[in-house]
Amino acid sequence: MNRKQLIEQIKIKKSFLCVGLDTDIELIPKFLLDFDDPVLEFNKRIIDATHDLCVAYKPNSAFYESRGIAGWKSLIDTSNYIPETCFRIIDAKRGDIGNTSSMYAKAFFDHATSGMNFDAITIAPYMGSDSVKPFLAFEGKWVILLVLTSNQGGKDFQFIDTEHGRLFENVIQKANSWADNDRMMYVVGATRAEEFLNIRKYAPDHFLLVPGVGVQGGSLQEVCKYGLSASCGLLVNSSRSIIFASSGADFAERAREEAKKLQSEMAMILEGIGF
Amino acid sequence: MNRKQLIEQIKIKKSFLCVGLDTDIELIPKFLLDFDDPVLEFNKRIIDATHDLCVAYKPNSAFYESRGIAGWKSLIDTSNYIPETCFRIIDAKRGDIGNTSSMYAKAFFDHATSGMNFDAITIAPYMGSDSVKPFLAFEGKWVILLVLTSNQGGKDFQFIDTEHGRLFENVIQKANSWADNDRMMYVVGATRAEEFLNIRKYAPDHFLLVPGVGVQGGSLQEVCKYGLSASCGLLVNSSRSIIFASSGADFAERAREEAKKLQSEMAMILEGIGF
Repeated sequence: MNRKQLIEQIKIKKSFLCVGLDTDIELIPKFLLDFDDPVLEFNKRIIDATHDLCVAYKPNSAFYESRGIAGWKSLIDTSNYIPETCFRIIDAKRGDIGNTSSMYAKAFFDHATSGMNFDAITIAPYMGSDSVKPFLAFEGKWVILLVLTSNQGGKDFQFIDTEHGRLFENVIQKANSWADNDRMMYVVGATRAEEFLNIRKYAPDHFLLVPGVGVQGGSLQEVCKYGLSASCGLLVNSSRSIIFASSGADFAERAREEAKKLQSEMAMILEGIGF
Repeated sequence: MNRKQLIEQIKIKKSFLCVGLDTDIELIPKFLLDFDDPVLEFNKRIIDATHDLCVAYKPNSAFYESRGIAGWKSLIDTSNYIPETCFRIIDAKRGDIGNTSSMYAKAFFDHATSGMNFDAITIAPYMGSDSVKPFLAFEGKWVILLVLTSNQGGKDFQFIDTEHGRLFENVIQKANSWADNDRMMYVVGATRAEEFLNIRKYAPDHFLLVPGVGVQGGSLQEVCKYGLSASCGLLVNSSRSIIFASSGADFAERAREEAKKLQSEMAMILEGIGF
């Protein structure tokens, strides 16, 4: 999915919601454990219940890898179940030297060899340009680079002062030269709402992937107040507060209700800026 | 494997060689493609041919993930084939918020759920302390944190000047407080030999995992001149120049010859410091 198509979906659905599929097998309703692949079954029902309310899904690779081969299979099958009307993000936080990053890109972008065909992948910036560029070598695919993360430990290095601003500001400035805003997004945690204005100085019309609304405590209103751009420019992720809204048989229905709440709020915000 | 056992293996084998299993199915001898799992078969023969000459193996996760489920199975079976006399490193460059890092730790450390039981995992530092600590919650397991990488792009951020030295020096200083040298190692590329003296100021007796000898151009002599510590303190990795020394039927034999060359050099170096 390209930038134009993503913006179209935002307009059609009046939503910039990304649903995080951090599907922990310990937390899904017990009756699903009777299915061949309980995690896939859970994800399918979540997707069926929410795909008209969100513009993106973001499976979190760790939750699948933790279950070995069965988990990897759930991930592949989930990726192929996400409809064409949704942007498909793999949250994998990869990054390595060039020839290794190429292999990671194949893993998530090259359906013929790996079975997966995501639109975008989250990448850690520490190893620099040549760890990122192999992902961009896949035509039409996106890199979503970690800039300012929502966790407490994010402060350990991201806020370090340097000659060109704080480290996360360096990261954006350098990464802006690696790709345009039609191939690159940045991760900015919702718990850092006070920094969105500042980030918009460097990335005025990039999409920002924003985790941390919901369980982690970030506020949608705050994020939008400072983070919205002329093209919307936000994908706000919510994981646990949607997918685990109920642990009963009504989990998909309750997930829809939670997604609907956020989507309604987003529709009003988008209307407010005449989008 | 704990620090004491690792040092014992170094003494027994007169080697601090780590063999990198960056097993690219495109580069293995063609006759292996007739096996059920060509990559596993390749790795087994490499391990059989080299395990008395090296103290560690390091499969590179990307090369397995790129092949989807088949690749993940090769990785699991390879991890279980590495003998007890070798330190088992998964080169995965992971790191995420706490609850996600816990899942990555299960993926590579918790045999019961994922089928893998590595001793150590490589981790990217960008997300800070709470992205690293969940790996250390697994008793006896190690974190190998990226500090100074061997690739050109490593310079983009790692050398940035800060109040407390360059960024990579910040990383070591902070990480030193997260675990002692019996649970934490640092990645320092062989192409940065001039920095080893400097790194030893902060990490005088930590083990350093050193990629970049061989194809990437790093020199073993230079690395040892500046990097050896009182407890040896180095695991020098070589991947392609060992495992792809030949693309013919003699690949394992030729891999042994290349490993033997490095091991002989290492034996002399260790003797030189009376180890």
